[in-house]
Amino acid sequence: MPVNLVAPEAHSLLPVPGVALGIAKANIRKPDRKDMLVISLAEGTRVAGVFTTNRFCAAPVTVCKAHLSKTDGDIRALVVNTGNANAGTGVAGLEKAYATCSELARLLQLSPEQVLPFSTGVILEPLPMDRLLAGLPQCVADLGNSNWLDAAEAIMTTDIVPKGVSRQITLDGKVVTVTGISKGSGMIHPNMATMLGYVATDAAISQGALQALVDHAVNRSFNCITVDGDTSTNDSFIVMATGKAGNAEIVEVASAAFQQLQDAITEVAVELAQAIVRDGEGATKFMTIQIESGKDVDECRKVAYAIAHSPLVKTAFFASDPNLGRILAAIGYAGVDDLDVNAMQLYLGDVLVAEHGGRAASYVEEQGAAVMQEAEITVRVVLNRGQASATVWTCDFSYDYVRINADYRS
Amino acid sequence: MPVNLVAPEAHSLLPVPGVALGIAKANIRKPDRKDMLVISLAEGTRVAGVFTTNRFCAAPVTVCKAHLSKTDGDIRALVVNTGNANAGTGVAGLEKAYATCSELARLLQLSPEQVLPFSTGVILEPLPMDRLLAGLPQCVADLGNSNWLDAAEAIMTTDIVPKGVSRQITLDGKVVTVTGISKGSGMIHPNMATMLGYVATDAAISQGALQALVDHAVNRSFNCITVDGDTSTNDSFIVMATGKAGNAEIVEVASAAFQQLQDAITEVAVELAQAIVRDGEGATKFMTIQIESGKDVDECRKVAYAIAHSPLVKTAFFASDPNLGRILAAIGYAGVDDLDVNAMQLYLGDVLVAEHGGRAASYVEEQGAAVMQEAEITVRVVLNRGQASATVWTCDFSYDYVRINADYRS
Repeated sequence: MPVNLVAPEAHSLLPVPGVALGIAKANIRKPDRKDMLVISLAEGTRVAGVFTTNRFCAAPVTVCKAHLSKTDGDIRALVVNTGNANAGTGVAGLEKAYATCSELARLLQLSPEQVLPFSTGVILEPLPMDRLLAGLPQCVADLGNSNWLDAAEAIMTTDIVPKGVSRQITLDGKVVTVTGISKGSGMIHPNMATMLGYVATDAAISQGALQALVDHAVNRSFNCITVDGDTSTNDSFIVMATGKAGNAEIVEVASAAFQQLQDAITEVAVELAQAIVRDGEGATKFMTIQIESGKDVDECRKVAYAIAHSPLVKTAFFASDPNLGRILAAIGYAGVDDLDVNAMQLYLGDVLVAEHGGRAASYVEEQGAAVMQEAEITVRVVLNRGQASATVWTCDFSYDYVRINADYRS
Repeated sequence: MPVNLVAPEAHSLLPVPGVALGIAKANIRKPDRKDMLVISLAEGTRVAGVFTTNRFCAAPVTVCKAHLSKTDGDIRALVVNTGNANAGTGVAGLEKAYATCSELARLLQLSPEQVLPFSTGVILEPLPMDRLLAGLPQCVADLGNSNWLDAAEAIMTTDIVPKGVSRQITLDGKVVTVTGISKGSGMIHPNMATMLGYVATDAAISQGALQALVDHAVNRSFNCITVDGDTSTNDSFIVMATGKAGNAEIVEVASAAFQQLQDAITEVAVELAQAIVRDGEGATKFMTIQIESGKDVDECRKVAYAIAHSPLVKTAFFASDPNLGRILAAIGYAGVDDLDVNAMQLYLGDVLVAEHGGRAASYVEEQGAAVMQEAEITVRVVLNRGQASATVWTCDFSYDYVRINADYRS
């Protein structure tokens, strides 16, 4: 059990006018667990998303992209199943994803193009279509505005806790709600576990402005726990704006209202992304890797991910062992070819550990050992070669990671 | 204990005329273990090497490169210590590496530039110079031609078994011996653990031809278990040719003699590299990742390493679970942007698992499960888009990997 889980805000999620959620226990892979979710959206809702770039992208991702481009965001329902990713399933998998949309469209009196399908779970196995179709009417019968916690539970796979966050802001004197849920926990090498994120708001915003907002939010949240271009087969992040709050529709990205909404949605997305790391498979520590004064963001991210992905670094954090040479080695192979290792500083928390290419004169190991005992640790690298910076969140690497992933299918 | 260790050939290593080895228990980090090695080379020996590209390369690596370029290969002694990597140690570390060379040169009546220093162990800690200098006369007193097994043991860190291989060939009617030793075992993400390899032969070969041979051998052996450009702070591979065999000096790389010697040394290097994988920290399975019919070697290596580095793939192999969708996901994020996943085939051993973007019609899971029970497994991906191929060797990922790396310093 992770020691540093935040109290799940999922228990106090605020309804979003125009959004209804229904869940089912459809026995997709295992009996008696919530494994399907339908989200129904009021007419006029704007929907925008960001998807995996994996070449083996799952069938539902292909269908999502097609439907979003066909309808220009006029989406009225989402359907999610866990237990099976419908990935690596070829043409048959695509047909099943389309058939799922058709059946839900029939039940909700929509056109199939107005439905977005999502799947997460085991890859390379056929989607059990009979059980999935049988689950749809259950979900529809269950639709309600207050089902956010059930929804957060219904999309979990190896997650230990449901993940959800709500925020409220005021736009044009109207209270606007933002509520989101996420799933994902295979964070040891974050590019390999499916992450799903769904954020809904009742703000009114144009399709173009919403897409700009989604790109901004995902780059500062979910893309800080995964490598650009290196994603799982099913990763998806969706924002839905129902327009029920009564604010004047946000069209201009330069407006104050846009900025306010963007900040709120980004904040929710950051919390959802961090919640995934905190619930990392077997995680006992939450690590913030902060790279400063690099030449550009790209090299800062390279260094951050080299540290965040190193099993040697992650096992040292699990052991609370300030074996910090492993961090220096990771910086050294991060792929920044002209990096001057003598010019940089390494901090563990507030403690200066290394500079001038070696251990800092002021450093004593007891200081590093004290920081290592904490459940939330910041590793800070100051490159001293420019103005750019980047932050990545990750977790440590424990026995339980191996146990969970060696057992996942059994 | 790895289940699939080959019987250590280290117990029957053949002496190489012109090469003497001496070891010491110098208490560098732990008491009562062989932790220092000196290799003394006859006059006229040619030496060539390949070193880490890590930006945080260790002090001894810097000194090795300087001495090789100063002497053009006229090296007469090597000195190796374990327990401390002398990496991330700044100017003081460099001075210590130079001082080590000077002291060994004094003992052996050489110039300091004729000595190559090597270190492996913990990073970021000062090299205990008094103990190291005290160990040097012990090593020199111990010098002998038959100490190869002791030498293989003296360079071990977390290795379980000593690693050594010998071969003999005939050149110009003269018997030529090739004997090598290696260390390294942090193979889960192979770019992060120090690998050292030393191969000696009594063949006569020019400096230029020897360097060409070393580059060839390392690209087909140690570079197939590590990522180009992503290496530890201390990785080094050295070939020494004493010229004592009496063959006509090999000068032309187009000659049959060059080819024969290159094949023998490459074979020894491949066995030494594979021995490192077999002794991988916590390894229970030896995996060969073979990518075929790619557009170029670079993309084949990208796909091979994406599979070989995936913790999800490696834990599935540890569990003997044919959860092969994880391999497809890794292929998908390998970074081959125009890869057509519908055109490729995935084989586990001889079993066709996936084609046409999904599970092969002929595949039944019992077949995959049977292959998964084996201790040596080949994963073969046929990209069907060109003539290039690449092979990478790796191991699975077990509880013991975490235990070893969480405990390493304690």
